[in-house]
Amino acid sequence: MQNLSEKSGTPPGTLVYFGKDTKEKVSITLIQYDEQEYFERDFSDFDECMNHTDNGKVKWINVDGIHDTAIVESIGTRFNIHPLTLEDIVNTMQRAKVEDYDNYIACIMKMVYENPKIKKKLVSEQLVIILLNDNTLISFQEADGGDVFDQIRNRLRQGKGRIRKQKADYLAYTLMDSVVDSYFSVLEMIGDELEDIEDLLLKSPDNGVLRRLHQIKREVIYLRKSVWPMREMVNNIERSETRLFSESTGIYLRDVHDHTIRVIDTIETYRDLLAGMMDIYLSSISNRMNQVMKTLTIITTIFVPLTFIAGVYGMNFKHMPELETKAGYFVVWGIMIAIAAGLLIYFRKNKWLK
Amino acid sequence: MQNLSEKSGTPPGTLVYFGKDTKEKVSITLIQYDEQEYFERDFSDFDECMNHTDNGKVKWINVDGIHDTAIVESIGTRFNIHPLTLEDIVNTMQRAKVEDYDNYIACIMKMVYENPKIKKKLVSEQLVIILLNDNTLISFQEADGGDVFDQIRNRLRQGKGRIRKQKADYLAYTLMDSVVDSYFSVLEMIGDELEDIEDLLLKSPDNGVLRRLHQIKREVIYLRKSVWPMREMVNNIERSETRLFSESTGIYLRDVHDHTIRVIDTIETYRDLLAGMMDIYLSSISNRMNQVMKTLTIITTIFVPLTFIAGVYGMNFKHMPELETKAGYFVVWGIMIAIAAGLLIYFRKNKWLK
Amino acid sequence: MQNLSEKSGTPPGTLVYFGKDTKEKVSITLIQYDEQEYFERDFSDFDECMNHTDNGKVKWINVDGIHDTAIVESIGTRFNIHPLTLEDIVNTMQRAKVEDYDNYIACIMKMVYENPKIKKKLVSEQLVIILLNDNTLISFQEADGGDVFDQIRNRLRQGKGRIRKQKADYLAYTLMDSVVDSYFSVLEMIGDELEDIEDLLLKSPDNGVLRRLHQIKREVIYLRKSVWPMREMVNNIERSETRLFSESTGIYLRDVHDHTIRVIDTIETYRDLLAGMMDIYLSSISNRMNQVMKTLTIITTIFVPLTFIAGVYGMNFKHMPELETKAGYFVVWGIMIAIAAGLLIYFRKNKWLK
Amino acid sequence: MQNLSEKSGTPPGTLVYFGKDTKEKVSITLIQYDEQEYFERDFSDFDECMNHTDNGKVKWINVDGIHDTAIVESIGTRFNIHPLTLEDIVNTMQRAKVEDYDNYIACIMKMVYENPKIKKKLVSEQLVIILLNDNTLISFQEADGGDVFDQIRNRLRQGKGRIRKQKADYLAYTLMDSVVDSYFSVLEMIGDELEDIEDLLLKSPDNGVLRRLHQIKREVIYLRKSVWPMREMVNNIERSETRLFSESTGIYLRDVHDHTIRVIDTIETYRDLLAGMMDIYLSSISNRMNQVMKTLTIITTIFVPLTFIAGVYGMNFKHMPELETKAGYFVVWGIMIAIAAGLLIYFRKNKWLK
Amino acid sequence: MQNLSEKSGTPPGTLVYFGKDTKEKVSITLIQYDEQEYFERDFSDFDECMNHTDNGKVKWINVDGIHDTAIVESIGTRFNIHPLTLEDIVNTMQRAKVEDYDNYIACIMKMVYENPKIKKKLVSEQLVIILLNDNTLISFQEADGGDVFDQIRNRLRQGKGRIRKQKADYLAYTLMDSVVDSYFSVLEMIGDELEDIEDLLLKSPDNGVLRRLHQIKREVIYLRKSVWPMREMVNNIERSETRLFSESTGIYLRDVHDHTIRVIDTIETYRDLLAGMMDIYLSSISNRMNQVMKTLTIITTIFVPLTFIAGVYGMNFKHMPELETKAGYFVVWGIMIAIAAGLLIYFRKNKWLK
Repeated sequence: MQNLSEKSGTPPGTLVYFGKDTKEKVSITLIQYDEQEYFERDFSDFDECMNHTDNGKVKWINVDGIHDTAIVESIGTRFNIHPLTLEDIVNTMQRAKVEDYDNYIACIMKMVYENPKIKKKLVSEQLVIILLNDNTLISFQEADGGDVFDQIRNRLRQGKGRIRKQKADYLAYTLMDSVVDSYFSVLEMIGDELEDIEDLLLKSPDNGVLRRLHQIKREVIYLRKSVWPMREMVNNIERSETRLFSESTGIYLRDVHDHTIRVIDTIETYRDLLAGMMDIYLSSISNRMNQVMKTLTIITTIFVPLTFIAGVYGMNFKHMPELETKAGYFVVWGIMIAIAAGLLIYFRKNKWLK
Repeated sequence: MQNLSEKSGTPPGTLVYFGKDTKEKVSITLIQYDEQEYFERDFSDFDECMNHTDNGKVKWINVDGIHDTAIVESIGTRFNIHPLTLEDIVNTMQRAKVEDYDNYIACIMKMVYENPKIKKKLVSEQLVIILLNDNTLISFQEADGGDVFDQIRNRLRQGKGRIRKQKADYLAYTLMDSVVDSYFSVLEMIGDELEDIEDLLLKSPDNGVLRRLHQIKREVIYLRKSVWPMREMVNNIERSETRLFSESTGIYLRDVHDHTIRVIDTIETYRDLLAGMMDIYLSSISNRMNQVMKTLTIITTIFVPLTFIAGVYGMNFKHMPELETKAGYFVVWGIMIAIAAGLLIYFRKNKWLK
Repeated sequence: MQNLSEKSGTPPGTLVYFGKDTKEKVSITLIQYDEQEYFERDFSDFDECMNHTDNGKVKWINVDGIHDTAIVESIGTRFNIHPLTLEDIVNTMQRAKVEDYDNYIACIMKMVYENPKIKKKLVSEQLVIILLNDNTLISFQEADGGDVFDQIRNRLRQGKGRIRKQKADYLAYTLMDSVVDSYFSVLEMIGDELEDIEDLLLKSPDNGVLRRLHQIKREVIYLRKSVWPMREMVNNIERSETRLFSESTGIYLRDVHDHTIRVIDTIETYRDLLAGMMDIYLSSISNRMNQVMKTLTIITTIFVPLTFIAGVYGMNFKHMPELETKAGYFVVWGIMIAIAAGLLIYFRKNKWLK
Repeated sequence: MQNLSEKSGTPPGTLVYFGKDTKEKVSITLIQYDEQEYFERDFSDFDECMNHTDNGKVKWINVDGIHDTAIVESIGTRFNIHPLTLEDIVNTMQRAKVEDYDNYIACIMKMVYENPKIKKKLVSEQLVIILLNDNTLISFQEADGGDVFDQIRNRLRQGKGRIRKQKADYLAYTLMDSVVDSYFSVLEMIGDELEDIEDLLLKSPDNGVLRRLHQIKREVIYLRKSVWPMREMVNNIERSETRLFSESTGIYLRDVHDHTIRVIDTIETYRDLLAGMMDIYLSSISNRMNQVMKTLTIITTIFVPLTFIAGVYGMNFKHMPELETKAGYFVVWGIMIAIAAGLLIYFRKNKWLK
Repeated sequence: MQNLSEKSGTPPGTLVYFGKDTKEKVSITLIQYDEQEYFERDFSDFDECMNHTDNGKVKWINVDGIHDTAIVESIGTRFNIHPLTLEDIVNTMQRAKVEDYDNYIACIMKMVYENPKIKKKLVSEQLVIILLNDNTLISFQEADGGDVFDQIRNRLRQGKGRIRKQKADYLAYTLMDSVVDSYFSVLEMIGDELEDIEDLLLKSPDNGVLRRLHQIKREVIYLRKSVWPMREMVNNIERSETRLFSESTGIYLRDVHDHTIRVIDTIETYRDLLAGMMDIYLSSISNRMNQVMKTLTIITTIFVPLTFIAGVYGMNFKHMPELETKAGYFVVWGIMIAIAAGLLIYFRKNKWLK
């Protein structure tokens, strides 16, 4: 949530990077293919990269690292991209959306995955896809993003499946599909954690459980905030009359749409489960308090009257007839045992002793 | 919820089975009928099955077991079914939906029923219906599904009712109707369980009740998640301008739609009831705590002052005039009884003693 | 909620009665009128009844008891009513709806009223109105329905008001209006009960109050479930382009619509009030617990130190200088009284003693 | 809420008064004006009143008191008003609505104000405006309504502002505006009360505060129920294609619409605040309980061990070496003081003593 | 919330100032620019200001202080602004809205910022923008508003960015953008506060935390109430077919729209977090109570039986055999230590001692 306001005051359209601090070098990867050929090379300079493009093939230019706003700007100038889109690219606080400009379509998405360093913590990363025409796609991702697209690159290299026969719109779909898949992985992780916690709740509901519940709740809230706009976004692409997505790719987008809905369904289910687990936690605390109180009450109720009796015969009155009798002491013991036994029977009958 | 993520990374359109582990043999049943004739046979090979089809009759090809993706693929190839539909068939994590392709309509549904092995536990099974034309319907169900369609088969065999006179779209409706009926059975089971729990709540609200409440809540959440898309699905069929469902069958679909709404209404009612029962449970715990505290307070309030008095006359001061008197001991007993009686009257007046 | 599932498996369109067990005889009443004449007779046979009809007059055929499915079936055959409508008539689990067929319009409604035998318990009864043309209306009600339409019959007999001058669509409106009025009666009963409970809540909030609150909650949930579809139903009639309701009757339907909205508003208000009353109940329990705890704490805090002091001077040490003094005993009493008084003043200052 | 059901059974269209009992005389006021002239007179007879009307001027006929249904009926007959509208006029249980008939438009509204007799209690009054044409408006209000329109009459008399230059539709707007203003007054009263209660909550949250919270909650629920239909009503007038409201008045209606939305916004804000205050109240109770429990625990924990030690040396064993020593008594005192001091230090460290 | 009702009764269209009391002088600033030139001057008189305008340039007339209704009125007369718009300008209780009149478009907005005097308290200020044509914009802000537009003025002076090349609609967008940015700043402040409180909640959840939670809740409620209409407003401008906003500015408005949605998303997230933190607070209180109760119970359970034993041997019966034995005293000590140790072991086993 940090840095939300720092931009306030700068003129709209200024490229200022907002995101995690990073010193990594920006790398530009050009992947170029058609059904027969496949070309892949990394560049550090955008113009250099453009010299290797071949118009007859599908070109995927992937920019890894958006903190170097100069590179983003030069790409923007080259492909005539609207300043607001460029601004969205370098500001990682965006919500998922699709922007349909005259000459291109821009999809902004949030990927989520488990932080590889801190277990059970989510990190998110912004991915911007710009589909320029039926064989040019540019993607921008944050620098420390990991190798989320490795599997797609592998499929491209090996020419497996449908992907090498298709145009750039299908590539865009493939990227979106892998973004939605990232949500499924995270949900599965959360689902496992929820099952763990549920076991704990029934065994030993302590403060730590509460903290983990709260932590998951935060993550579910965060996921929810990320995935709802994803759904809208896919929906908007489907409904938009863009010529950039072919009809046959549209069927695949419908599938992505279904997947986002499944993600949302699962998140809502988790929310309901979390609410139920909170209830169980709270009533467990109450139950335990009840248990403690019962113990206290049973002990007090038994011993306080006995102590009173002992106190009575500890009084120093001159004239106390019982004290003189021979059996007095034993009679009193008998009475005290009878009282204790009676109370215990009473408690058992009222199910106070489990 | 398991396995959600395993698919992540495989190319879209790859047929990978996701569902319960099963070793059962896949069986393909061909049922073929018109008003006069009825034919039924099981096959283990799809091509074998296709050799027995007769174009003039209504054909229902039921595939029991979807873990053998090769069979699904060969059916897909034969009838020109879109790869995404095939993928949906073998992935049992789908939500109910209808997909309207040019050459067929595919309905994905979730049946629910009580686990025959573990009482009061729900299991669900995915059913995919593909309506190819007015006399061909293919259905795919998971292998261990039981004999859910037995009654339909019986009606077909006996030629009872409207069903043998109708086309495949009516058969599709009949299957959907039996899916919705499966929800009614489960709701009834839950309704009975709720009544049981309500009785328990008023008699002996313990931790076990809470666990059962939570269990039902989970099931209601699960049912809700399953049935909402069912409703959408039926609605979408009704509104779609498919030529595959005739107008006269449309009236029956409207009936299925009404039934799904009734299922949803009942689920929402159960949710409200569950929330109310949770409230009762929590206030029962509080009430019992109150009861325990009152007992403790009454005992303490009565005996502590008496014990104090006994303590006073147990002191060993040389000069304590009361101790010397003859009646002292009895006067003190009198005072102590008076105090106890006074307190009891006070408690009764304040309704502390029920 | 019982019997929901029993139908599962029977072919759609089979007439099976679902509802309360009843042995009463089905009676068919024919009421026939125009502005001048009025005719009313009970029949036990439907064909007999049809022999008395006169085409120039408005005919109201009321069937009291739907458990005799043969009668329903013969009416269905005679008037060419769709099997699904017949099924809806004999299954009393329907939600309110309107079905617009080519040759008739069918309205299914739920009446509610207080059980005349068990006070403050609701029962509901299904009413189906079939409007066949501008002068034929058939109504089906459950057998033990009471005389809910007596007032309408009286107005028809006496020719009072607008009703004798109007066609069957106005009669249909009159029946709907009396159904909605049944909700107002029940709401009023609930409103009175709520006021009673509110008084009790402030005076003596015990477990019985909770049970009554829960009971009303169930009834409000039930009413809500019944009345929302009523509203939809009336709305659907208004919006449908049926020629069966004339424009002038449309204005009256709008009035029924307003009434259903008022019923819904009141139900929602009751829900809000119930939630508020539950809060008050729970905080009353807490408050009382506080009161009990305070009593305990005050008693303990006062007497435990005093008892300690008495205990000290009850010790049997050989050398205890205070014991030897003449005034010792009285000084100790003084100290003890001072401590008790000091604590009482402290409690009063902190408002622990009200 | 009383009397909701009494009407049930009477034929629709019958004029029966439902509202507060009143014996006041109905008064009919005719106000007639154009830019130059102004005429105002009270009548007790409607026909008498009609004799004074002048077609060239704007006529406002205000009926104060609707319990005399004969007067309402004669006005209805004279201006050809639909029986259902007349019924709505005399039944004060209506929700706000607009009814667009061919020859007039009827607006039913609820005014709210503080009961002048019982402080901080709301009363509401029904106002029906019938706009017949561009210079005739009839308004019906309940008899004990007070002088809510005095300010409007004053502005008419003095010819101040725009009002004398405008037609009857502007007068209708003015009346609606004053109705919405009545909500603002009431909201302000509630807002002040909320601020009072918030102060109390932090100072001394007792049962009385709870009762006041509940009372305000009821009033907010009631207001909400009244104002939502107001908004719909104004919206419906705006969207309706009535020729009775001129375009220039339409701009003013949009303003009324904005005001109703502001009222709703404020009500929703109050609801949120009330929920928050309830939370604070409940946690204050818990906090206080905690405080009481701590006191009890500290006292008990300190004195119970000391009393035990005193008890030990009060035993009467023949052979107890400590009792014989000279310093024994003082050593025991030392030990007891040390224990008490140790416990106090422990409590302070754990922040049990604030 | 104060003063809501004071207006009630005044004729609509009367200019009465509602807002904070202020004595500051109203200042009118004229900024006039095109790509080449820039002119800026303060006036205290509106007519004086109008003498300096130049039709060929973009004119921004900013009125700082709306309590001098005469100035507002003269501006209204000059530019033919509808009385209702003028009324909205001087009444600072408006919700954000856009009003599309024939000759201008009026946008009413709420800016929020932290009160510079009282930390962590929000203040809001109303801003009205009137866009008269493609080169005239008038803005009205409250007098003590601070220098929120300083950055915009700087950019205008320096001619940086796009702004000097654009028309007045772009200037309107720039102002709106800075209003939305003001929300981001405030949200960031609240986010920081939330993180602080979350830390406190886990460390020392006391009453102060509750008060801060409640305070933030109020502010979030307030922000929510302010920002939802902002979103509607921007949406309405986008959808309206006004010719005043050019298509190229429309893209920027879409960006403002996205920002308001992000603000709303963040607010909703905060609401969810606040609810979760309230839960944690409440269960912390319960947990602590549990802790206190356990301490009490352990102490009581250990010492009460021991005190009873001491009491027994403090009795003064003549015949008590144990008292005579030599080892009696030490045996009793042994028994008492054994009981205490046994209970401690029992507590440890049941995890009562952490």
